[in-house]
Amino acid sequence: MTHQTLAVLVIGNEVLSGRTREANAWLVAQKMFEHGCHLSEVVVVPDVQAEIVQSLNRLRHRHDAVITSGGIGPTHDDITMDAVAEAFDVPLLEHAETMAKLHEHFGDDINPGRRRMARLPQDAIPILCAESMMPGAHIGNVYILAGVPYIFASQLASVMDDFAGEPFLREEIEVLIPESIFARGLAEIQAQHQHVEIGSYPGRCGLSPTGKICFSSKNLAQLKAAKLDVLAMLEKLKQDLCNDN
Amino acid sequence: MTHQTLAVLVIGNEVLSGRTREANAWLVAQKMFEHGCHLSEVVVVPDVQAEIVQSLNRLRHRHDAVITSGGIGPTHDDITMDAVAEAFDVPLLEHAETMAKLHEHFGDDINPGRRRMARLPQDAIPILCAESMMPGAHIGNVYILAGVPYIFASQLASVMDDFAGEPFLREEIEVLIPESIFARGLAEIQAQHQHVEIGSYPGRCGLSPTGKICFSSKNLAQLKAAKLDVLAMLEKLKQDLCNDN
Repeated sequence: MTHQTLAVLVIGNEVLSGRTREANAWLVAQKMFEHGCHLSEVVVVPDVQAEIVQSLNRLRHRHDAVITSGGIGPTHDDITMDAVAEAFDVPLLEHAETMAKLHEHFGDDINPGRRRMARLPQDAIPILCAESMMPGAHIGNVYILAGVPYIFASQLASVMDDFAGEPFLREEIEVLIPESIFARGLAEIQAQHQHVEIGSYPGRCGLSPTGKICFSSKNLAQLKAAKLDVLAMLEKLKQDLCNDN
Repeated sequence: MTHQTLAVLVIGNEVLSGRTREANAWLVAQKMFEHGCHLSEVVVVPDVQAEIVQSLNRLRHRHDAVITSGGIGPTHDDITMDAVAEAFDVPLLEHAETMAKLHEHFGDDINPGRRRMARLPQDAIPILCAESMMPGAHIGNVYILAGVPYIFASQLASVMDDFAGEPFLREEIEVLIPESIFARGLAEIQAQHQHVEIGSYPGRCGLSPTGKICFSSKNLAQLKAAKLDVLAMLEKLKQDLCNDN
């Protein structure tokens, strides 16, 4: 049984302080769209254990799955594993296989920082990747991944099989008519095509207003049908606008 | 009285589906750091009214202020004003001054899309900007801004005086020693400098590990003192590492 919906919980003062532009939730958004899993919510909280526990408990009960990003390193601000253990009310234990790997690599000289990173919530399954000796963890419906983007991406790839597999499809058209003019027609078409999500995104190109209408669905035929209806509606509007002149 | 903490609520399927990389919360993060206001939480929800209402009510009671981004255009997926009115339990009313402006510009031919955008929650104050005739709105401790980034930025600039004014400062140093080796020393220094936030962010440069230690505070002298302690700690570690060879 794969997850149909998920939330991402980003843990990081560096994102909230504007030091770092968030990248991992954005990667999840793109990958989950391709895998047909609904990303339903993203939350960014600071490196404060009570905040992480509260948000994680809220999100894991609301969504099929939660992916966390960040806070699993060796330093004082890395408290995600502690927070997850608290949220699940289980102890945080040194993971025997990870410790064995560390001993193999570093001999007997395992510093406290590395030892700290080898702790997982009881009964969590380690999430391994080629980029780091230090595991993420999977417990209940929560996936705990690193914040460093190249490690996050590698760990994410290793768990994607747990998420729904039929991709969403997306097509866009560019529109030069102001949104307010086609809004009513677009709403009518959206009402007729319940299995297609239609979004309208205005912008500007230089000083000229321009916009995109975006169609997404798992069903290509339904997507194309909605798009054709919108193209016909826009064409009719254009003719009406010209007749007015 | 200016706000000391805030949350950002981003409303947008386009962010959750990976179509668009979030930009407005990131702008807020940077601006608020410069203004010394703590951005405490960011939440991204879909264009679903019940979700917006629930998140907005949670956030506005937890933080000094909330800035929302997106969902105030003329199309069917623009439901933020409706959601805010529901959250505050007030009606959504056509804003007389905005309607007057529209009549002045478009004559009597105000289409339903533009009329829709002229609705504000009762007693909300319009947030005006040079980039759009359509206002955002300020009600209670909530600021409702547009999602289109150049309009969002302009509206944000117009309300920045409501947020705390003494800037946070940030300095960083680059570190080539692995995090796990300096983690304990860094934790001790963090404990001695409560008014400085010390963060450690590993990365890699090509195949070599590299990292940054980041100091932030409103007090430059305290920031410098913490940084000097960390530099001395790292220098001592370097000597110890060399003596070991």
